[in-house]
Amino acid sequence: MKKNHLFTPGPTPVPTEALLAMAQPVDYHRSAEATEVIREVLENLKVVFQTENDVLLLTSSGSGAMEGTVANLLSPEDEVLVIRSGKFGDRWVEICEAYSITFDLIDLEWGHSVDPQQVAENLKRKPGMKAVYATLCETSTGALHDIKSLAAITRETPTLLVVDAISALGADDLQMDAWGVDVVISCSQKGLMIPPGLAFASLSDRAWEAVACSRLPKFYFDFAKARALVEKPTTPYTPAFTLILGLQQALRLLCDEGVRDVLARHARLAGATRSAVEALGLQLFAQSPANAVTSIAFPQGLDTQAFVKYMRDNHGITYAGGQDKLRGQIVRIGHLGWADESDVIVALAALERGLHEWNYPIQLGAGVSAAQEYFGTPS
Amino acid sequence: MKKNHLFTPGPTPVPTEALLAMAQPVDYHRSAEATEVIREVLENLKVVFQTENDVLLLTSSGSGAMEGTVANLLSPEDEVLVIRSGKFGDRWVEICEAYSITFDLIDLEWGHSVDPQQVAENLKRKPGMKAVYATLCETSTGALHDIKSLAAITRETPTLLVVDAISALGADDLQMDAWGVDVVISCSQKGLMIPPGLAFASLSDRAWEAVACSRLPKFYFDFAKARALVEKPTTPYTPAFTLILGLQQALRLLCDEGVRDVLARHARLAGATRSAVEALGLQLFAQSPANAVTSIAFPQGLDTQAFVKYMRDNHGITYAGGQDKLRGQIVRIGHLGWADESDVIVALAALERGLHEWNYPIQLGAGVSAAQEYFGTPS
Repeated sequence: MKKNHLFTPGPTPVPTEALLAMAQPVDYHRSAEATEVIREVLENLKVVFQTENDVLLLTSSGSGAMEGTVANLLSPEDEVLVIRSGKFGDRWVEICEAYSITFDLIDLEWGHSVDPQQVAENLKRKPGMKAVYATLCETSTGALHDIKSLAAITRETPTLLVVDAISALGADDLQMDAWGVDVVISCSQKGLMIPPGLAFASLSDRAWEAVACSRLPKFYFDFAKARALVEKPTTPYTPAFTLILGLQQALRLLCDEGVRDVLARHARLAGATRSAVEALGLQLFAQSPANAVTSIAFPQGLDTQAFVKYMRDNHGITYAGGQDKLRGQIVRIGHLGWADESDVIVALAALERGLHEWNYPIQLGAGVSAAQEYFGTPS
Repeated sequence: MKKNHLFTPGPTPVPTEALLAMAQPVDYHRSAEATEVIREVLENLKVVFQTENDVLLLTSSGSGAMEGTVANLLSPEDEVLVIRSGKFGDRWVEICEAYSITFDLIDLEWGHSVDPQQVAENLKRKPGMKAVYATLCETSTGALHDIKSLAAITRETPTLLVVDAISALGADDLQMDAWGVDVVISCSQKGLMIPPGLAFASLSDRAWEAVACSRLPKFYFDFAKARALVEKPTTPYTPAFTLILGLQQALRLLCDEGVRDVLARHARLAGATRSAVEALGLQLFAQSPANAVTSIAFPQGLDTQAFVKYMRDNHGITYAGGQDKLRGQIVRIGHLGWADESDVIVALAALERGLHEWNYPIQLGAGVSAAQEYFGTPS
């Protein structure tokens, strides 16, 4: 018997209530009943996005929503600033290139987080920048970026702040309205705890003003068209409605727990994981680690690509390895979404056993004990 | 107690095997096991598309795949020919407009089908046309277009034939390779019998040549990027993997039955439905009705929008009404996907009872009897 345990930073495990909701016989997505489901989902998404702005519901992966923020906000002559510190910052670069948008690049070492001062200086030098494209948690490295400080800079300028919160929404704090973030995008298979296939975008008033002026082509990801249907509420094109039924259940769980408590839970799970990593003599890869995912580096050397495969094949434990230039160099452990203390203990205990089997020098039990100590300490 | 019976021309009922597959705990979509699922799905999609060309798997509604055929095939200076005979032909118009593509329009009365001669004449007059944008079954009217004849024209010219087969793939015959169709797109929630959220596109060699020259911006729907990953096989961005698990089951059912038999079944279900419509003194709205959906007009007048709502609210029967300019004027009954003779009898019997309750002059049992006669006649 091999039980599967999923610890990737997306997809994340789906609560049973949501799985069963998605297994219901399919119904018509334009019915009055479906409309009520969408209404509830859109309201609860606003709670998780910590915003009063509309949240648009898109049927795509998060990358579709990312493309939408370029196609809907910009015009050919616009210049933007892109922050790249990993594979997903690089996706902003790829999208700008696809649309022939001129951009300045703050190109950081992978695992590092941006110094807000660098953004401030760039915007001082180039006050005409239309937008800054940033990332809350760079999923490929586990690094958290200081979005609050970035927003404090951009909100005093005409420059919009666009944030990819794909992997961290619901795990790391992002107060869209209170901080003054202009655009937040995310997707379904991370903190929102349902399978991949839905993406979300929320825009501030001044972002909507930019949308009204944008002259890049757009159709499927036309935000204005989506916004016009929010009050019905429905979507311009057929949505992945079974996923929405799952999302309804997942959002109820999140809203019942309360967003502040959801974030505190993630902080706790991440804190315990980081304690364990240090107790095992391993290294946190990210300079400023996010609460969504912990990236681990191995000072004694480890082919993490092979190790991750070994753990899946032999223990039913699915971690994520490194991507692109980090391939083979880190192990990423997701502790987000439908995750609790027991899940973290399982992930850490399996890591210890696996490393021990690979003769990597760690002390069995040291990581789990550190996590137990962490959990046992009143916060 | 109210049992729900779904007869919209998409979404269509989902086989239980597929529903249960989609309710499994979520797994990592880049694992070896997931890759094997995608490999099987892509192979079986080729069977249903009746092609040796790759079929690309997109996470979006069908409209995303439609946009992809414009963004990937065309450049700003290209001119195309669009055939419009309903809401979905109009979607081609909207997409061309979104990308500022110049187009000629064959603008037909809704419910009519294109005369291939009109296309031949247009292409003779304008041999430089890059593509013809057509529809297999115009879902909003139930009209079938003669794609075989259109392909016989375009294959002798440099002009590409792009076909929206969203609602009719697997219900009305479309022999992509044998007929010489250049691009076929479809989606998940119609003949393929799973919930909405996946779309598909298949391109001929000469369509891929056009892709290589295209200069419109594209990112999420970049066909070349998707094609480059088909051999792995995987997708450029996180796919809606639970829907793919459902699709695996649905495609097994379709391939076990055999595509020719699947099409014959749909012809039979549609034939019986059309017999019943005539026996009830109602009218087939489409000049040339498709096997995917039957659109019914009511010579004595009927507010079909209110009638459709009444049937759903009081009988748990969901038909589709008319869309846009046909709102309130027709009832559309889908008989595609996971549909058999018993489903057609249920749809027709409920229609009779509902019309009787609305004092619409029909003879109770006449439609069902005609369908029974039709089914009882050896084909």
